Amino acid sequence: MILDLINSPNDLKELRTSELKELCQDLRSEIIRITSQNGGHLGSNLGIIEITVAAHYVFNCSIDKFIFDVGHQSYAHKLLTGRRKLMENLRSSIGASGFIDPSESDYDSFISGHASTSLSASLGLAKARDIKGEDFKILSILGDGSLSGGMIYEAMNNSDGVKNFIVILNDNQMSISESVGAMKKYLTKLLISKRGLICRKIFRNLLSKLPTKLAQCIEKTVKNLLYLIKDGTIFEELGFQYIGPIDGHDIDKLIAIFKNVRDVANYKPVIIHAITKKGKGYNLAENDSTKLHGVERFKSEKFSNVFGEEILQLAKKDEKIVCITAAMKHGCGLRKFSENFPDRFFDVGIAEEHAVTFAAGLAKGGLKPFVAIYSTFLQRAYDQIYHDVFLQNLPVRFIIDKSGFPGEDGKTHSGIYDIALFRNFPNFFILAPSNKLELQHMLKIAVNHNSSPLAVRFPKTAVMEHSCNYQFELDFRIISYGERVIIFFFGPLLNHILQAINISKINPTIVDIRLIQPFDFKKFCKLSKEYNKIIVIEEGISGGLSSAIIEYLFQNKYLDLIKKLVFLNIAKDPVDHESRQSQIEKSRISIKNIVNELSTINI
Amino acid sequence: MILDLINSPNDLKELRTSELKELCQDLRSEIIRITSQNGGHLGSNLGIIEITVAAHYVFNCSIDKFIFDVGHQSYAHKLLTGRRKLMENLRSSIGASGFIDPSESDYDSFISGHASTSLSASLGLAKARDIKGEDFKILSILGDGSLSGGMIYEAMNNSDGVKNFIVILNDNQMSISESVGAMKKYLTKLLISKRGLICRKIFRNLLSKLPTKLAQCIEKTVKNLLYLIKDGTIFEELGFQYIGPIDGHDIDKLIAIFKNVRDVANYKPVIIHAITKKGKGYNLAENDSTKLHGVERFKSEKFSNVFGEEILQLAKKDEKIVCITAAMKHGCGLRKFSENFPDRFFDVGIAEEHAVTFAAGLAKGGLKPFVAIYSTFLQRAYDQIYHDVFLQNLPVRFIIDKSGFPGEDGKTHSGIYDIALFRNFPNFFILAPSNKLELQHMLKIAVNHNSSPLAVRFPKTAVMEHSCNYQFELDFRIISYGERVIIFFFGPLLNHILQAINISKINPTIVDIRLIQPFDFKKFCKLSKEYNKIIVIEEGISGGLSSAIIEYLFQNKYLDLIKKLVFLNIAKDPVDHESRQSQIEKSRISIKNIVNELSTINI
Repeated sequence: MILDLINSPNDLKELRTSELKELCQDLRSEIIRITSQNGGHLGSNLGIIEITVAAHYVFNCSIDKFIFDVGHQSYAHKLLTGRRKLMENLRSSIGASGFIDPSESDYDSFISGHASTSLSASLGLAKARDIKGEDFKILSILGDGSLSGGMIYEAMNNSDGVKNFIVILNDNQMSISESVGAMKKYLTKLLISKRGLICRKIFRNLLSKLPTKLAQCIEKTVKNLLYLIKDGTIFEELGFQYIGPIDGHDIDKLIAIFKNVRDVANYKPVIIHAITKKGKGYNLAENDSTKLHGVERFKSEKFSNVFGEEILQLAKKDEKIVCITAAMKHGCGLRKFSENFPDRFFDVGIAEEHAVTFAAGLAKGGLKPFVAIYSTFLQRAYDQIYHDVFLQNLPVRFIIDKSGFPGEDGKTHSGIYDIALFRNFPNFFILAPSNKLELQHMLKIAVNHNSSPLAVRFPKTAVMEHSCNYQFELDFRIISYGERVIIFFFGPLLNHILQAINISKINPTIVDIRLIQPFDFKKFCKLSKEYNKIIVIEEGISGGLSSAIIEYLFQNKYLDLIKKLVFLNIAKDPVDHESRQSQIEKSRISIKNIVNELSTINI
Repeated sequence: MILDLINSPNDLKELRTSELKELCQDLRSEIIRITSQNGGHLGSNLGIIEITVAAHYVFNCSIDKFIFDVGHQSYAHKLLTGRRKLMENLRSSIGASGFIDPSESDYDSFISGHASTSLSASLGLAKARDIKGEDFKILSILGDGSLSGGMIYEAMNNSDGVKNFIVILNDNQMSISESVGAMKKYLTKLLISKRGLICRKIFRNLLSKLPTKLAQCIEKTVKNLLYLIKDGTIFEELGFQYIGPIDGHDIDKLIAIFKNVRDVANYKPVIIHAITKKGKGYNLAENDSTKLHGVERFKSEKFSNVFGEEILQLAKKDEKIVCITAAMKHGCGLRKFSENFPDRFFDVGIAEEHAVTFAAGLAKGGLKPFVAIYSTFLQRAYDQIYHDVFLQNLPVRFIIDKSGFPGEDGKTHSGIYDIALFRNFPNFFILAPSNKLELQHMLKIAVNHNSSPLAVRFPKTAVMEHSCNYQFELDFRIISYGERVIIFFFGPLLNHILQAINISKINPTIVDIRLIQPFDFKKFCKLSKEYNKIIVIEEGISGGLSSAIIEYLFQNKYLDLIKKLVFLNIAKDPVDHESRQSQIEKSRISIKNIVNELSTINI
């Protein structure tokens, strides 16, 4: 394998073109092998191999800055920058992160787990470089999905005249879900416009048949027309030199263009529009690029799927139900809904801010919007939740998916902050299902809850089946009665807690909280007072429900309860990328910690 | 006055064109009179009068939805929709809000205090309308400053094919600070491109001199060129019908175009580009449109000014200091800095998300970025602070202006949530100056603080002078020693607290906290333990410092201290628009409440 010879990007510069092509093949097989072992993003990483190799061949990643947007398309980059060993254990605590992470390698210039941040970060690096009088290139490598986020536009709006600032648009015509909106259509049009070249030829031929002076005059007039009325691509209008579209798998061409751009990028920012095929070289991935955006090692029924199935059934009975997602149709389980109700389904692209205010508009217009977004990405719409939903008290329903520990995706995707955030909005209902039946019931409640905003929050885990049928109420659910200790929890942690109980041989009362906000403090106190120890388990940072409870007990000076209370919640620090189970076991909600608390009861 | 005859928009529809012009004059004088009495936004409201009158004349605001972006340009709209009386007390608790507020009037369709939200909200209303089979127009009235925010782009990217969806771009070439970036240049180019019309004439003349067939062939080829290669304005590329630019003060023309658009907007979204003059009809405002964006009734030295003055001096000695603002150059006191260091000053437009990630890039590039943003607008960049600053632990310096109560701007501008938010990031330093000297010292500390992010937080008030010179340390400052009670506070609340103390005749120890995070809990406990009562005063919601303290005391089971502790902080609910002083006096940190706590001491 040629890849075996590459320990740093410098080694790659010695290769001949034919060897570079071989290298691409090596990377391709290596990435397929690694992701089949560890999971991860397959399609996007196969699609960007030639671009990555050409970029490392032409530019100098030790000096120049490579900024990936988003970082999940960086596997080839990692394999070329001395991380082959780490990649063997991709997405585990002893291996490489699935995203760009400067703490992992100096070749990673800027963190990248959330989309559309690249141009802003690059622009900061560029201005710092220019102010300090340094000299290097900045290369932003941007998926077409990232182009649907407003930050890209904000940054372009501020990029006027910045030099040695090169953007490579990796356009696979298909972001996580298929790219949406006007910009996608526009990019497609740019592809088609190659026909313009032919027109231009015909035009030149025509002119050559006219008297020279007249021909010159017509040519000049046409150029003026083009310049004054209709001046180029959107990118050119925003001050960029636009190059493309080019074939993003043609390594010769990529190298030629990158070299050219490297030498001439010193007068204005440049955008290179490269067309690639997601999953290039892997048949399954090529044909179904959505499913293979992220590969998982095993499957089971997820909360997302239960949501998707249930909301589909509810929507059949209530035509006011509409669903909104930000490029996560599949991740949020909404594929079937989108097929059944194409007119009541809105995938807005990677545009969470717009998604939330748009949903507020839908609610104001009398519909019942369900916004399904991953917890970590919903952070981006905090202000829209505040300004458009909370202040107007609009009944927007949030389905907060991938809440709690992020698992292998790691720190950029952590969903442990949401309760602390939502707690700032006292009118928000926050519900947490502990099993499948609970989620189904909570969705029914959400449909009919028109008096305020509401959120249903669940993690990225297989859904637990309910052990038996029971009457659902939006109230504490006492799962089993015991003595001395009472344990409160929410979310699908029951099995986890039962394991700890088994080890400790204590028989506590177990209560599923269900409704995190508004929290029934009085009932909490009433239930708790006869026990010697009260344990509250929260898969979320301190500042969330734990703080709400302690604030209440403090305000009411319930010192007796304060004395007996223990909170097991999550520290605020970034978490490593590793399995969700490992993250739980390294945290304060670990089995060990629960056992420990159970075995130290004041009597 | 014709305005006297207008009690609802219907009355306006009876007027002749000459009377409409008179009405505009009436509105102009009325707005000048009202803002000179109450403060508020003058320039933008004078600039949009003709657009507002024409819109109410042509459209039916009882059925059609008017969405203002941002809502501060709605005074004429309010005067025309039955709120003349409320406008007499503009921005006070018995008067109208300075922004659009649906709870004030049914003619206000959607809240609008933060920029760039209009198209998303409008799109939501439009889709709800279409799904429900209703029939009305939606009119978004958009300042050119709002165009610098990414949400507008996100919404346009999703507006494809939506009908009866009309955007009026009120382009005064000058948002709060002057509009920035490529989009502004682009809008200006659209103005100039009228010259294209002349070129087209010349071209036609030339063609007429050629044989018909040849002429047709050339014309077709040119049209193909135009269509295939270069297809129109950015707005047209994103699927909008673009109309303009037109004179936004020519009421006849506005009415004609609005009527036309009203009748034909049923096949695709339309954007009307109207050129206006900020402050139109008021000489002072016309000439210095920035200063008169917001009018204040009296002036005094603000924290913002002290910041601006001090950072200017510091920047003269340290060339790594750069400043970033999101369209608030004047509001944040950075005018002088921008003049002295144009290359180290970045006004990115109303684009807080970009501002923060851009600053992270600058920090990563080795500079010392100071991001000056109002507390309420910084909410918009919560995820960027999380993802790009916190996770990478970059030394971005945040100057959080207008923290705490928002005063007359009211609920959409509340700055009471920031501590609860920033507390999620344990590596953040949060400093709060209580007077001018403190702010100066804290800025010096910020310059040299390279190990983590840091925020300096201050409210929208006149700065307090320090009573005497004293040695500055980043530690609790014991202002005066007393007995029985110890009061902790931060920010410029000393005079307020002294008033309460005077009334109560108690002599407590008074401590200025200064450093909110990392908070010195041990020293807090040590200082507090000898007192009978501990009062912590926080101009921020519960969930902020108060929660941090109670969490610590709880974890360490300091029940004695818990017993003696009282938190005076702010409720999470939206606040009314009225003076900052009234907001304080209606809250838990009121003088009355402090007196009350001082007079009920356990002995």
